[in-house]
Amino acid sequence: MPVFGTLRTNPLNLTRIIPAEGGEPPSNAIRERRFARIREPPVCIFIMLTQFESARQNIVTPEMEYVAKREDLEPELIRSEVARGRMVIPANIFHLKGRLEPMCIGVASLCKINANIGNSAVTGKVEDELEKLHTAVHLGSDTVMDLSTGGNIDGIRQAIIEASTVPIGTVPAYQIIQQTKDPLDVTPRQLLDMVEHQAKQGVDYMTIHAGVLLEHVPLTRDRITGIVSRGGSLMAGWMVKHHKQNPWYTHFDELCEIMRAYDVTFSLGDGLRPGCLADANDAAQFAELKTLGELTLKAWKNGCQVMIEGPGHIPMHLVKMNIEKERELCHEAPFYVLGPLVTDIAPGYDHITSAIGAAIAAEAGAAMLCYVTPKEHLGLPNKDDVRQGVIAYKIAAHAGDIARGRKNARKRDDELSKARFEFDWNRQFELSLDPETARRMHDETLPQEVFKSAKFCSMCGPKFCSMRITQDLRKLADDASRVSLELTSAATVS
Amino acid sequence: MPVFGTLRTNPLNLTRIIPAEGGEPPSNAIRERRFARIREPPVCIFIMLTQFESARQNIVTPEMEYVAKREDLEPELIRSEVARGRMVIPANIFHLKGRLEPMCIGVASLCKINANIGNSAVTGKVEDELEKLHTAVHLGSDTVMDLSTGGNIDGIRQAIIEASTVPIGTVPAYQIIQQTKDPLDVTPRQLLDMVEHQAKQGVDYMTIHAGVLLEHVPLTRDRITGIVSRGGSLMAGWMVKHHKQNPWYTHFDELCEIMRAYDVTFSLGDGLRPGCLADANDAAQFAELKTLGELTLKAWKNGCQVMIEGPGHIPMHLVKMNIEKERELCHEAPFYVLGPLVTDIAPGYDHITSAIGAAIAAEAGAAMLCYVTPKEHLGLPNKDDVRQGVIAYKIAAHAGDIARGRKNARKRDDELSKARFEFDWNRQFELSLDPETARRMHDETLPQEVFKSAKFCSMCGPKFCSMRITQDLRKLADDASRVSLELTSAATVS
Repeated sequence: MPVFGTLRTNPLNLTRIIPAEGGEPPSNAIRERRFARIREPPVCIFIMLTQFESARQNIVTPEMEYVAKREDLEPELIRSEVARGRMVIPANIFHLKGRLEPMCIGVASLCKINANIGNSAVTGKVEDELEKLHTAVHLGSDTVMDLSTGGNIDGIRQAIIEASTVPIGTVPAYQIIQQTKDPLDVTPRQLLDMVEHQAKQGVDYMTIHAGVLLEHVPLTRDRITGIVSRGGSLMAGWMVKHHKQNPWYTHFDELCEIMRAYDVTFSLGDGLRPGCLADANDAAQFAELKTLGELTLKAWKNGCQVMIEGPGHIPMHLVKMNIEKERELCHEAPFYVLGPLVTDIAPGYDHITSAIGAAIAAEAGAAMLCYVTPKEHLGLPNKDDVRQGVIAYKIAAHAGDIARGRKNARKRDDELSKARFEFDWNRQFELSLDPETARRMHDETLPQEVFKSAKFCSMCGPKFCSMRITQDLRKLADDASRVSLELTSAATVS
Repeated sequence: MPVFGTLRTNPLNLTRIIPAEGGEPPSNAIRERRFARIREPPVCIFIMLTQFESARQNIVTPEMEYVAKREDLEPELIRSEVARGRMVIPANIFHLKGRLEPMCIGVASLCKINANIGNSAVTGKVEDELEKLHTAVHLGSDTVMDLSTGGNIDGIRQAIIEASTVPIGTVPAYQIIQQTKDPLDVTPRQLLDMVEHQAKQGVDYMTIHAGVLLEHVPLTRDRITGIVSRGGSLMAGWMVKHHKQNPWYTHFDELCEIMRAYDVTFSLGDGLRPGCLADANDAAQFAELKTLGELTLKAWKNGCQVMIEGPGHIPMHLVKMNIEKERELCHEAPFYVLGPLVTDIAPGYDHITSAIGAAIAAEAGAAMLCYVTPKEHLGLPNKDDVRQGVIAYKIAAHAGDIARGRKNARKRDDELSKARFEFDWNRQFELSLDPETARRMHDETLPQEVFKSAKFCSMCGPKFCSMRITQDLRKLADDASRVSLELTSAATVS
């Protein structure tokens, strides 16, 4: 009986599957090998293993194989990275039954991006959120977080999970805040129940602010912007009010049981992340990070997958050291960073301030970048903000992949550059991150179809284009060498 | 008679000023000390010294003093940096008579940005260009290049110089291309005459592609995008056609005489800059950079100010080494970089792909960043593109200033963060790089004036805002310590 070291007897860990005869086959073949048989027929009892547990038992799951194909890497590499805890495959067993196409997050694979969507207490309907989901996934977001905080919060989440081919993340505390009269009076049981409730809906990863400890709160005393994480401030407020330790922290093993049962990946939240440059890299931030490192080991021991969330607002010259510090303190668990913004003075353009920090983080080894939209600090993003945010982050992640020399990372750049040199405008648009926008901008001045193969654009105009001159020069050189070759041949013959 | 080492007798170098008695005083007092007296009254003959020559003669010019105030640095530091060639003050003597407010470009001062405007052969009127100028300067562009290539090119330039308080740069080759039947038949005389023509109009700095040599052209043979600089391809085409060396290079001393006479700053162009990531850091690029280093020494010997133009398209991990290489090969002359773009796959968003590279370049020591607008590679920028480009580059330059720890660089960030924590929305907008945009985005969901002091925004909604919780916690802590203090006092008294 292949029982994993710390396996618990909680019924949540057991999934009974009736033998196939006449019964309904598992709807998604990809999941079959996720279960280790612990009893023989006629009554089979299977124990669901998480991706992490499978990897540690040297099992290459169908999800790992799928991911390996997507990444053009060896399945064994994926398995070993997952086993090492350096890579996660956020795939709730219920979302796997749905439309989820498994993907991985880890430094050995391409850098990923996440887009946040979700309504607020003030605004937002299901259709709007589904439209944002579609925009984000269409433009290449690798995961999506539903951060809804108001209205029909369960209905929106269910609709998003059902529609989504990418992993969905949530912050369970948000629904707590919505549904309790005074969030500071929430009980540990309510927190755990909320996690289980969302896990059952199929959420693939959850932000849990378990690293904010009571003794960390005074460390934020002299900050300019205090605690800017909603989940973090909820915990801080709760702890101060009740003079008790963080319930996520005190009930972490129980929490792991739930997460493990559905293979929900931990996204250990940085509740004390800095909210401005002045607060970056302070004692509070790093004290929490150290705690997250301890919790990482605990979660692994419980068979769970883990990634670590990171800041936030960091000046450029400190971004790399943040990545290195996480690697050291959190045992190389994938680092999932929000931006970071490298200046505070550009509200309205924080997709750019943060894409700069995100690109540097990606180069330094961040595994996933959480986008920031132009609306950050000002309001909730609409569909166009989602577009701006996703593209800015596709740029940052891709630039990081190139800088790290990841396999084939520059291929698309080279293809596009060739098309550019050959004045093949349509091909250029096709290869662009946002073909619609590229085409629209080109067409603003030269809309006619004939200009799609014109040997110039509206920048140089038709008279003198540098790349056309280069082509002429090359032709000249080719002709010259042909002539010289012919002369040589003629000389040899005569 | 304080004659500077390499001073020439060309009449262009002499400016005769009749003694003051009853005569018209120099219209702009700031320029008075720019002239070294070489004869005594009754007939005074003054020799105009460039900023560089003045600095080398230990003269702190009024422009240096002005610049020192703007930068909050010592005038002597400015002088010594200019003397060392590590800083330039692009200030054509004729533009100084006009509205120019002198500024400096160099690693000892804040990182600067440039915005390109100008019409094309296909589109553009004077009013449009003046509007772009206004937008660029209003949003904080430190210099503006007029890259007009068509229509009333002289009229547009004159109007821009007259209107502009910031230095204006040009690429004289562009007007050559417009005005000669076959640009490849231009004569060295025509090139020099064009420089003088534009110098007389008051252009403050000019891009001169003097470093592209005949022997460099074959080095571009295997590039994906060949030669992408218009000025560079003009020179390459000319050299191949005539089997002669680059006329800017062969006539460099004559060119220096003209530049010196008006104190036009050289912006030695990178005609062989890479046009895509695949072509970055190749032999052609660095061969030209080495030549630019030689020309820098020659220009300095001729009393001229010099900055060096840099790429273009460079993957993130090679940006820093590009800055270091320029510093070494070009004797620390200020590096004026275009972007660089860190990926080729995002036409329509190249203000972002390039702002990432530009920020890294700024951190590594680039002195000025030439903006790239969203329209790059697709068409000419309109007014809104100018706005997007300028803000992206203000962000990049400012992030670089913070990372380099430049004096007071983070002050505005901290002020804005304080306003953010205090929910002082109007102050936040005021301190933003683009107040109009920040206010508009906030008002999209919460337009009423009452929300300008509301203790929440549409992101969190009114029920639970992290920063408000922090404020409550702090109040709680203050109350607690006051109570404890009162108890202590009471205990002491009793």
